Amino acid sequence: MTNAVVFTHVKKVDQTGFLEADDQLAAEAPLQIRLAYYSNNVRQTQDIAVTMRTPGRDAVLASGFLFTEGIISSPAEIQSVDLVETPEGSVATVQLHPGIQPQLKRIDRSFSSTAACGVCGKTSMGDIHTVINTPLSSSFQFPASVLFHLPEILNREQDLFKTTGGIHAAALFNDQGELLMMEEDIGRHNAVDKVIGRALEENAVALGSSLLLLSGRAGFELIQKAAMAGIPVVAAIGAPSSLAVTVAEKWHITLVGFLKSQRFNIYSAPERIRV
Amino acid sequence: MTNAVVFTHVKKVDQTGFLEADDQLAAEAPLQIRLAYYSNNVRQTQDIAVTMRTPGRDAVLASGFLFTEGIISSPAEIQSVDLVETPEGSVATVQLHPGIQPQLKRIDRSFSSTAACGVCGKTSMGDIHTVINTPLSSSFQFPASVLFHLPEILNREQDLFKTTGGIHAAALFNDQGELLMMEEDIGRHNAVDKVIGRALEENAVALGSSLLLLSGRAGFELIQKAAMAGIPVVAAIGAPSSLAVTVAEKWHITLVGFLKSQRFNIYSAPERIRV
Repeated sequence: MTNAVVFTHVKKVDQTGFLEADDQLAAEAPLQIRLAYYSNNVRQTQDIAVTMRTPGRDAVLASGFLFTEGIISSPAEIQSVDLVETPEGSVATVQLHPGIQPQLKRIDRSFSSTAACGVCGKTSMGDIHTVINTPLSSSFQFPASVLFHLPEILNREQDLFKTTGGIHAAALFNDQGELLMMEEDIGRHNAVDKVIGRALEENAVALGSSLLLLSGRAGFELIQKAAMAGIPVVAAIGAPSSLAVTVAEKWHITLVGFLKSQRFNIYSAPERIRV
Repeated sequence: MTNAVVFTHVKKVDQTGFLEADDQLAAEAPLQIRLAYYSNNVRQTQDIAVTMRTPGRDAVLASGFLFTEGIISSPAEIQSVDLVETPEGSVATVQLHPGIQPQLKRIDRSFSSTAACGVCGKTSMGDIHTVINTPLSSSFQFPASVLFHLPEILNREQDLFKTTGGIHAAALFNDQGELLMMEEDIGRHNAVDKVIGRALEENAVALGSSLLLLSGRAGFELIQKAAMAGIPVVAAIGAPSSLAVTVAEKWHITLVGFLKSQRFNIYSAPERIRV
């Protein structure tokens, strides 16, 4: 299960009748994220989370997830990521260097009572304050004239969306409006974890002076992940939620919503957008 | 926190400059779903999940969630739902009748390793087979001519989407294309839980002969919830995922995707749609 697209057969119906046709679906499959670390020189493993993801970028997804959830504090803590297909599904085992202790308290508190499409809200919000003690102070700025072009650039790059119509994207841009990297996934949280994981791994993007573009809506969890990565500006093609705005204000992240080629709204920290 | 909409202040930017304006956001806030039951005549409580939801229909959301996740097998098992606002957030406590034992094994297996936007994929898929032993055999049928009208009806009814642009809807229809009930939420899983919870509570909808309409995409978890409720036809305005199609085929649920006023695709069990 390593393909991002799955072929299927559909019945296409319109007002005149129907025809049989081939079609492509965005792949959705479970990934077990497993952590391996040394405690008193004994190797321990612990299952951290199972996420429904689009296969293909599992290593950066796993490392990005561990980072944005605060379980590791730097990609330099990772020794290797091992990908295995088991009869029960895909497993990504993230091995930490000897001597590195993961923040496992965060797992118990954040994930143990999580279900449906939610992080453990209040608990998780409480947790992150232990990591993000101070609001972002980045003086990075982005011209409004450049923002208007971003939806078109994202749209041009979204290969999987074009073939399946059912996938989210997250992308990083610099203040010249240049696309630095983009990742796609059926889960918008995964798309963000992939792009942050990749940026950290390649060490080629200055996250503190980049803009994170989201193809859909901006919920609380995505702002939380951006905050963990120190990204000062988040722009969403769709709507922000109330809690996304609340936490963006608290951590002083610039939040742009309803970004279109002609207009957008700024919900927090507007001084980073030069109008 | 009982309002579905939160008022905010935004900076609206276009090519000519900007203006300050009032705006409305879809409310996103955590709800703790707690179960209370009697074990050997001693009242036990257990926190089941925290979900980020749009406030306002917490009782049906909590009962619907417990049902679609297989923790209770019928709404008749519920004695009462108690809603409390605590300093840490909203809590919905679902009290079961004396003598009713919840399926708590399902909690440990399904939710304990869940995070981001995912149910515990494989575990959860394994679990549901213990509940859904046989595919749906409903002979319910829906005329294609009626399906074409559903997006327009949904669009007309989506109050919160109109004001916030950032919310999902789930609705139940009969085979005449009549809207039976609709619920909105910032999480699409919650919208489905709310509408199923309400249908069960009001006992006014024959779920086995209804169609579930989703305003967005159809992922695995939503098909799983429909299967738990015995709903034979699911139609999504957006794209289905690969796993959604796989499980719809397995449980013999009719899955329609990309439903528009002029066309749609059928991915599984097409005999329930009369073309």
